[in-house]
Amino acid sequence: MKGEKKLSKIKISELESLIFTLFEKAGLNKGHCQQITDVFMRTTYRGVGHHDIYSLPGRITNLQKDKINNSPDMKKLAGFNSMEVYDGDNGPGEINCYFITERSQKLADQNGISLVSIKNSNHFLAAAPYVELSAERDYLSLIFSSAGISMGVGESPKVIGNGPFGYAVQGQNHNVLFDICMAYSSYGKLHAKAEAGEKVPSYWGKDSEGNSTEDPAEILEGGIPLAMGAHKGFGLSMMVEFITSILADGDIALEKNKKNTGIYTHSIITLKPEGVNDSYVNNVDKLIDDMKTIYPDLHIPGDSSYGSKKEIEKKGYFEIEKSLLDRLLELKEDL
Amino acid sequence: MKGEKKLSKIKISELESLIFTLFEKAGLNKGHCQQITDVFMRTTYRGVGHHDIYSLPGRITNLQKDKINNSPDMKKLAGFNSMEVYDGDNGPGEINCYFITERSQKLADQNGISLVSIKNSNHFLAAAPYVELSAERDYLSLIFSSAGISMGVGESPKVIGNGPFGYAVQGQNHNVLFDICMAYSSYGKLHAKAEAGEKVPSYWGKDSEGNSTEDPAEILEGGIPLAMGAHKGFGLSMMVEFITSILADGDIALEKNKKNTGIYTHSIITLKPEGVNDSYVNNVDKLIDDMKTIYPDLHIPGDSSYGSKKEIEKKGYFEIEKSLLDRLLELKEDL
Repeated sequence: MKGEKKLSKIKISELESLIFTLFEKAGLNKGHCQQITDVFMRTTYRGVGHHDIYSLPGRITNLQKDKINNSPDMKKLAGFNSMEVYDGDNGPGEINCYFITERSQKLADQNGISLVSIKNSNHFLAAAPYVELSAERDYLSLIFSSAGISMGVGESPKVIGNGPFGYAVQGQNHNVLFDICMAYSSYGKLHAKAEAGEKVPSYWGKDSEGNSTEDPAEILEGGIPLAMGAHKGFGLSMMVEFITSILADGDIALEKNKKNTGIYTHSIITLKPEGVNDSYVNNVDKLIDDMKTIYPDLHIPGDSSYGSKKEIEKKGYFEIEKSLLDRLLELKEDL
Repeated sequence: MKGEKKLSKIKISELESLIFTLFEKAGLNKGHCQQITDVFMRTTYRGVGHHDIYSLPGRITNLQKDKINNSPDMKKLAGFNSMEVYDGDNGPGEINCYFITERSQKLADQNGISLVSIKNSNHFLAAAPYVELSAERDYLSLIFSSAGISMGVGESPKVIGNGPFGYAVQGQNHNVLFDICMAYSSYGKLHAKAEAGEKVPSYWGKDSEGNSTEDPAEILEGGIPLAMGAHKGFGLSMMVEFITSILADGDIALEKNKKNTGIYTHSIITLKPEGVNDSYVNNVDKLIDDMKTIYPDLHIPGDSSYGSKKEIEKKGYFEIEKSLLDRLLELKEDL
């Protein structure tokens, strides 16, 4: 989708080092730099072209302008055995989500299942990196993030966040990586479609007059992205709010409109399947093998991501827009 | 949707007593009769016209024919503190789900969050009654059920269950009751639409030739109901399988086609929000009040169900198809 733009190659290790350096210069400590670099690398390997390295200049700028706290001190606000709530101290969503992911793994080791929530946080970039981290360590995590009011349902204007959500599992032979919002399309995908001059199905959203449109640009320019499956996607996005901002007492609905930063609440539910079933990993493969027996061409969530990663690792470099790479190098000098 | 059919009135207490008697005559013990009657009453109050009292003759027949075990003895297969797995002994899904719901509440009392799974079970009727039971007791439950291979995605034939799922929450002033499958439409709703001669959006499913159709009857007759939002609903239905049959080592994918009964696995995740946040109930109201401030006509999941219940309680009776009531009374005599 970025095909028309001039691309630059950058070696894997160089991109990793560039991301690390940028965050280090923006004031994050080394441990946090490692975590947030891991998050940006994982998302960029997916090859999506949004919610990845393309969001990096914005993050650095927000840290520079003190919109996001570069030295967050997460504080535990409440805990009840396997359920805990933290304050994210207006830190980067990536650092806060890395923290709750690892914390939830520890609690799942003790209790089989856990939920850890963090409020007063910022955008987490994507669901994928955190749940992938859990899957690699043999956990099954579901991550939920509240979001600004950004999605409508039926005839409504925007009434709720679009419910960012994801999970991942790993078998011996198959991986699943699932990262969605509850609208038919994320803003990132709408932008990509608009840029590529592609149409979208008329039920994906409405224009600023409230009419159905196939033009993603019209949805973006004062229009309304719609919940997938109408009341279904709407109810799922409400669930995301219940499990995040409602549960953790974060910023709810209209409160989010009054602030620029720190409006996000994230929650992660982590299971330790081996605690109850030795065959879990084999069963993961079995489900996917069976579905592929029925329909060999079946696309499994994560196929594109892992295909992209494999290709990048084989080539040894990423290809990103030249303008983005220039901007990142410029930021490195500026900081 | 049942408007053209002749309707019979039956007093609330009489329907309750009729359901109880039918299950008692079918051999269930008194405790199980109370639970399954509660499940059928709760779903029938919703006024949906499917996945409720209309499924009762089928349940009774399956018990009569010993397809479903009327005296199930649930056995704990595995447990790891707040996560437990049971064998449902081919009992009614309603009894098994009532059991895991109450068990998960106990574990949530101890640990804040819990997951209880039961395999070798049967259809649970609907997600709503169990999560409503939890919400009334101030828990937040999410219930998941595996299902027979019944849904396709994109160009595929049916490859996976349609991922029955639900949750409920109660505020002081607002209730939310969410009960869906991950296809655009459940089979029950497709039947109701077909019976009413209504069309459905062309993206809801395909006919037996694999072509898009607006005729729900064509989707039902050898056609394919499609996952909502394509890969999104598909990935969500996979999640339901991971949390149920994969986790609990129940019947997976093609195994389900080899058996008639006991193919279902159910799981419930239960949270005790008050364990970490005293404002939870107020926050529930706040989210809904805020959304209604933005758009007063907003329909909240559960509005129809609770509207129907209020109306039935005010009238003091249910109205169901005469043919159904006749059939139930006939079954009562037969047993």
